Amino acid sequence: MIPRYARKEAADIWSPQTRFKIMFEIEAHAADKMAELGVIPKLAAQTIWEKGRDAIWDADRIDEIEREVKHDVIAFLTHVTEIVGPEARFLHQGMTSSDVNDTALAVQLSRATDLLIDDVDMVLTALKRRAFEHRLTPTVGRSHAIHAEPTTFGLKLAGHYAEFQRAKERLAMAKFEIATCAISGAVGTFANVAPEVEAHVAEQLGLAVEPVSTQVIPRDRHAAYFAALGVVASSIERLATEIRHLQRTEVLEAEEPFEVGQKGSSAMPHKRNPILTENLTGLARLIRSAVVPAMENVTLWHERDISHSSVERGIAPDATVHLDFALRRLAGVVERLVIYPENMLKNMDRLGGLVHSQRVMLALTQKGVARETAYASVQGAAMKVWRGEGLFIDLLLADETVTLSEAEIRDLFDLGYHFKNVDVIFARVFGQEAMAMAKAAE
Amino acid sequence: MIPRYARKEAADIWSPQTRFKIMFEIEAHAADKMAELGVIPKLAAQTIWEKGRDAIWDADRIDEIEREVKHDVIAFLTHVTEIVGPEARFLHQGMTSSDVNDTALAVQLSRATDLLIDDVDMVLTALKRRAFEHRLTPTVGRSHAIHAEPTTFGLKLAGHYAEFQRAKERLAMAKFEIATCAISGAVGTFANVAPEVEAHVAEQLGLAVEPVSTQVIPRDRHAAYFAALGVVASSIERLATEIRHLQRTEVLEAEEPFEVGQKGSSAMPHKRNPILTENLTGLARLIRSAVVPAMENVTLWHERDISHSSVERGIAPDATVHLDFALRRLAGVVERLVIYPENMLKNMDRLGGLVHSQRVMLALTQKGVARETAYASVQGAAMKVWRGEGLFIDLLLADETVTLSEAEIRDLFDLGYHFKNVDVIFARVFGQEAMAMAKAAE
Amino acid sequence: MIPRYARKEAADIWSPQTRFKIMFEIEAHAADKMAELGVIPKLAAQTIWEKGRDAIWDADRIDEIEREVKHDVIAFLTHVTEIVGPEARFLHQGMTSSDVNDTALAVQLSRATDLLIDDVDMVLTALKRRAFEHRLTPTVGRSHAIHAEPTTFGLKLAGHYAEFQRAKERLAMAKFEIATCAISGAVGTFANVAPEVEAHVAEQLGLAVEPVSTQVIPRDRHAAYFAALGVVASSIERLATEIRHLQRTEVLEAEEPFEVGQKGSSAMPHKRNPILTENLTGLARLIRSAVVPAMENVTLWHERDISHSSVERGIAPDATVHLDFALRRLAGVVERLVIYPENMLKNMDRLGGLVHSQRVMLALTQKGVARETAYASVQGAAMKVWRGEGLFIDLLLADETVTLSEAEIRDLFDLGYHFKNVDVIFARVFGQEAMAMAKAAE
Amino acid sequence: MIPRYARKEAADIWSPQTRFKIMFEIEAHAADKMAELGVIPKLAAQTIWEKGRDAIWDADRIDEIEREVKHDVIAFLTHVTEIVGPEARFLHQGMTSSDVNDTALAVQLSRATDLLIDDVDMVLTALKRRAFEHRLTPTVGRSHAIHAEPTTFGLKLAGHYAEFQRAKERLAMAKFEIATCAISGAVGTFANVAPEVEAHVAEQLGLAVEPVSTQVIPRDRHAAYFAALGVVASSIERLATEIRHLQRTEVLEAEEPFEVGQKGSSAMPHKRNPILTENLTGLARLIRSAVVPAMENVTLWHERDISHSSVERGIAPDATVHLDFALRRLAGVVERLVIYPENMLKNMDRLGGLVHSQRVMLALTQKGVARETAYASVQGAAMKVWRGEGLFIDLLLADETVTLSEAEIRDLFDLGYHFKNVDVIFARVFGQEAMAMAKAAE
Repeated sequence: MIPRYARKEAADIWSPQTRFKIMFEIEAHAADKMAELGVIPKLAAQTIWEKGRDAIWDADRIDEIEREVKHDVIAFLTHVTEIVGPEARFLHQGMTSSDVNDTALAVQLSRATDLLIDDVDMVLTALKRRAFEHRLTPTVGRSHAIHAEPTTFGLKLAGHYAEFQRAKERLAMAKFEIATCAISGAVGTFANVAPEVEAHVAEQLGLAVEPVSTQVIPRDRHAAYFAALGVVASSIERLATEIRHLQRTEVLEAEEPFEVGQKGSSAMPHKRNPILTENLTGLARLIRSAVVPAMENVTLWHERDISHSSVERGIAPDATVHLDFALRRLAGVVERLVIYPENMLKNMDRLGGLVHSQRVMLALTQKGVARETAYASVQGAAMKVWRGEGLFIDLLLADETVTLSEAEIRDLFDLGYHFKNVDVIFARVFGQEAMAMAKAAE
Repeated sequence: MIPRYARKEAADIWSPQTRFKIMFEIEAHAADKMAELGVIPKLAAQTIWEKGRDAIWDADRIDEIEREVKHDVIAFLTHVTEIVGPEARFLHQGMTSSDVNDTALAVQLSRATDLLIDDVDMVLTALKRRAFEHRLTPTVGRSHAIHAEPTTFGLKLAGHYAEFQRAKERLAMAKFEIATCAISGAVGTFANVAPEVEAHVAEQLGLAVEPVSTQVIPRDRHAAYFAALGVVASSIERLATEIRHLQRTEVLEAEEPFEVGQKGSSAMPHKRNPILTENLTGLARLIRSAVVPAMENVTLWHERDISHSSVERGIAPDATVHLDFALRRLAGVVERLVIYPENMLKNMDRLGGLVHSQRVMLALTQKGVARETAYASVQGAAMKVWRGEGLFIDLLLADETVTLSEAEIRDLFDLGYHFKNVDVIFARVFGQEAMAMAKAAE
Repeated sequence: MIPRYARKEAADIWSPQTRFKIMFEIEAHAADKMAELGVIPKLAAQTIWEKGRDAIWDADRIDEIEREVKHDVIAFLTHVTEIVGPEARFLHQGMTSSDVNDTALAVQLSRATDLLIDDVDMVLTALKRRAFEHRLTPTVGRSHAIHAEPTTFGLKLAGHYAEFQRAKERLAMAKFEIATCAISGAVGTFANVAPEVEAHVAEQLGLAVEPVSTQVIPRDRHAAYFAALGVVASSIERLATEIRHLQRTEVLEAEEPFEVGQKGSSAMPHKRNPILTENLTGLARLIRSAVVPAMENVTLWHERDISHSSVERGIAPDATVHLDFALRRLAGVVERLVIYPENMLKNMDRLGGLVHSQRVMLALTQKGVARETAYASVQGAAMKVWRGEGLFIDLLLADETVTLSEAEIRDLFDLGYHFKNVDVIFARVFGQEAMAMAKAAE
Repeated sequence: MIPRYARKEAADIWSPQTRFKIMFEIEAHAADKMAELGVIPKLAAQTIWEKGRDAIWDADRIDEIEREVKHDVIAFLTHVTEIVGPEARFLHQGMTSSDVNDTALAVQLSRATDLLIDDVDMVLTALKRRAFEHRLTPTVGRSHAIHAEPTTFGLKLAGHYAEFQRAKERLAMAKFEIATCAISGAVGTFANVAPEVEAHVAEQLGLAVEPVSTQVIPRDRHAAYFAALGVVASSIERLATEIRHLQRTEVLEAEEPFEVGQKGSSAMPHKRNPILTENLTGLARLIRSAVVPAMENVTLWHERDISHSSVERGIAPDATVHLDFALRRLAGVVERLVIYPENMLKNMDRLGGLVHSQRVMLALTQKGVARETAYASVQGAAMKVWRGEGLFIDLLLADETVTLSEAEIRDLFDLGYHFKNVDVIFARVFGQEAMAMAKAAE
């Protein structure tokens, strides 16, 4: 985990203290049910909670024990005995280490995903506000980074909004995938621990019961989880890249907030660089790098091997914490993005009306000209514009094969024509209600 | 696409002929709606269908045209004109190439996914049958490839069954992700094509309407799609690897079918190798290799660039066709897997009862021995067994710290003890009804 | 392999016919040595060459046999017997299938790499010519896509030239990695085949002897090979992306060649899109996708399993053929790139001299102003320029903290100042000799 | 970075303190040359070294400054001024942040690679010792995890030795790739800093001069670097997996050292698991995960963007530190691997001589039987052995088509036959000298 890309709230989920607390609770909840089932004394379960509920677990001490026994859960349980006393011997009856480890991981990943969903909500809120703010702000649509036809800046943002709605659903689904509890013993047979224990712990922790586990919760779940994070990271990269393009000197249609006191370059005092979105681009690569190892983790041998463990010690905190950071950073950038509508118009005019070439062609076909011929006429005029040989409209007027009057042509150059369906799309994306509210506020 | 790993039914989805047919249908359905809206003549739409419905599209001719115009959809439309005649000029009005390309891809991926879901059903059917067949066949559970505790072979298969049920859900979700239609024009504004056209084409093709598109359907959808395929491939690899392990000479608990006439090695006539599951392992790697490029495809520039296209020309057919092949092959292997219950028992006995070590330890703690002490006693005896210094049971009986009678110890070595909850798990995985049917059939 | 991104010359290396020919030659060369060693009759070896040297191998027939024996090399050898006659029984003595398969793959990959190295030479030639052509063509250097300081277009290209020189070395090293021959028998012990046979075949085919093989040539070699291809693909992507940026409407400093007859868009006749370099971006993703599976292939079990085979049937032809195509395409784009020096100058002027901010700051520090203070003064003026509040030079002149005369300031705005070391860099990259020749030609 | 998989010596390379020290030295060496060139006062350079050489840099203070200026190198330089005093204003003249950052990274990666090469030497030493120890220890060679033919355990290790020799060369080459210095100013033109400064700093730090840089050292170098690490990690995984296979209960030909006090399982006291090599398998996945993002980093925009930075803050320390840990762990495992030659023999006998099937077949062909016929005879007998219908030798003797005498057949079952070329291979791998020494010691 890279500290500078970690919010405390997210990083804390992965602290040893948090983990030990969750592990204790799993064991203690299990003890409750075992006590109820008569497997261990009720008093033992009670004492365990009393002594352990608010305990501060000593990570260094646990490390010290682990160096001897070379087993993390045994080290933890040994330390629990030091804190809780002899009743601790009733803990972990019939359970196996993975019962604790995997269920703890499920709790941690669930909490991390809750944060991520909140983060996406912040991105959505920012996108929605700015989308409505610029619902009808004209800007050029670009395919291949070449001017295509007019669109609105709000429509651009609406597209990203819809993508982050999908991101939210993917995260919800990802949480559903990994939020399961397994307390099924050494090879998943419940030989020495009753299924009721598992059900009880699952309920207490807000998890589903894993229908069938081996020694571990199956890792296809985690593969699907990290894959979902990788897709969300890619959506961040798309929006970040859009902003980077819009901020480039020659375009400057939007710009990241630049703070008082900020310095863009150690060498060049004039610089204002889109460093936040470039950073998001890099973080997207990092987060995506969790996907393949998570998939390679699926193939554990037989009832489990432990090769997945080191991988998850890396990717579980790193991918969730960095994604949390990235989403927050993105929300901030969108919220405070400086937008230059006048530059959008200026850029759109750069090609002198070429963005209307399709309308001219279609108008010609409506007049009975064959599509191929109409295309050739309009392309001919357009290529002259590219070569700097005149304005598009003049060239069209001078072209005999363009059988349109000047009034007709001028009419085809109307910007508003392109925005007639913006509200239809907004209603699809944000809902009729949001549209009505926006209209009312205008 | 590697021909030897391609079923004709799956490969045909990606043939030029299929693609051109779908592209034609998209254009023709769009023409129907445009005619209804009065944008083009009704007769034109009718003629288009008449001439094109059963046309054989000439891929070579289209290639030839493309070499000149350097644009695939224009080349296609030019050829449509050659087949359909002058009415073809009414096609594609206000549409852009990606409207056709992306919607066609959605149809192809949907069809491919339908196949994949059918394939998973075949895997599920095979797994279920074999799982019930071996519901109570004892086999050793292994963690770290070291004997752990007894389980049943049916339980192993039940775990894979549950995983492939998740695979099926993931494929259904993946199809939902990509099964959308966009006919929204050059930059997604519906400037020159009415939203009603999109809705009509979507309905005719069984797709949802893409709420907001740029020039293209957003590629986060496809990233999620290929990620899902990667997870399914990883689940295949897990089961394939299990079988490879079980077939190794020293284990031989299961074996791939070996045909009459088959040769295992060019040099060694005695060989019977798990080549099908090894092949599945390799195919899993290949299919997974689509995941990262699909994620890199998300970040198209502005309203689109075309960098995704070459990637998808590779991964879309390759990943779906090879996954189809792999699932079918897997279903066949499971269906016809040769299973050796006697070898399972023989292997289980290899460590002379060590698999019961936990029960002995737990029995000691039940008698009041501290967990640490009990662990040490049992571990001591076990390590002697590893060193070949005697049978586990004899060593336990000889150990003074093991305060259990011979009868008690022998009782702890009972295999049946481990299987008491097998039906609980089966009911979770296969449902109560399937359990009842199975019991009735016994 | 995607046919539209495959040159015949490259694809032919991977045709069944080529492969069978290589396999035959491996077997026949081995037979020669075996005959010399007295293991098989000399006449047999002679007959084998006579009958097989120019044989047309029947891929369909081999497939047919393979369907029965389920073993590709046995199927091939059976067909060889059909062509060569009974002497074929002396072939493959003491050899194993992988001896033939892996050595054949080494030959194919070597040939493919020779093509790739030639391709890189074409890229280098084009880059060098254009670099010298534009050695002193001023253009703005951009960091973060924001104007930084002046550079020359030739210098940009020189950087890419140096990168492709490294690409060439990487490919040479990659070839060295995989160009080995193993004829060592079933588990690499030379039990039934003499090491001299291996040495002879290696020499005949221009390969090195694999020092120690298992049943296969170790796959770390192939992992290193495909990793090298992935790096080369990434270098292609960098140059392709540069061109895409330079072609964007607002920049237009360079442009891909646009052919007569070419159409940029089905909808918009005015479009000229950088589709070649976008395509290269996508191909880079595809080629890179071979890297991870090649690394996953390294871990074959014991003396080999066959999981690598299906992977290599995909990635070996695909990655090499598409890289060959991509390099050729890139060379063509560079060779025929349309370059607009006047637009470069126009763009450089866009910020009214802000690109000289560092020189002004350094001049101030030379006059004894503290770096922090100088930075603040210059940044203050620059930020006003960003806000459209005046020209940089006017603002500097009006700023009391800028203790420089007008003449001094104007002198700091000299473009030539930035190019004084261009020739130093060119000499590093292209060598003194090339520099001298270029100077002489001026 | 995961602390439990990090050696202090490796982690220290990446500490803020180390980094700041390197950054200072780069600036101070540059100042020396600038003073010599008369660009800054000689006394300034002298004072800078005096005050800064042994300074303790305050990472918290630097962070604090960075929070204001939002630029890491400026924050560092500001702190240097706090320590060094006003002469610090002469630092960084004409340099850009990346000059410092990239060159510092080159130093860190070089040092890390020196460690890695030492680590590989430890692996090589261990492999060589154990290889010679077991040069002639018979063990079965396995293809597809099925018994193939006899080999020796030393030969297995020799193969891994050769692979790690290649790993060493790859690391040396990787270091060569990234060990360059760039001090070329804002866009690489040396506009405000003389090339001599770069040459001086490079020499002082033991780096090569980067022939042509943009604002940064080109990232194809780093892509090649991390790709090399990924290949080495994969070689670790192959050896780790071999050991895991050999330790499985049914095989038990080798075993990781198991310490006194160690516990294999929290639930099952009898367990001895190959957790070290499983851990290495996981670490290999983690290290490999750096490869793709490093390749994605290559395509920086124009003269640079900063998207690579966050990626490298993660992968540079993580991949090098974890690879260092993994190599050390591997060396230890090989060094102390418990090897069971008697189990190797026992396992080899498991199939009753089937491992000799090829020799029998070849003997038949030598007697004039057609290869196909010989194959069928031997395969027929072998399949009966698989089905438990007798011993291979008995079945061969009883088979009329096997025209060999009992003596001849028994001779074909000689193990020594397979080892006659072991020394040839050892001489190839370890050299003639090592062979001679080994022979002398016998």
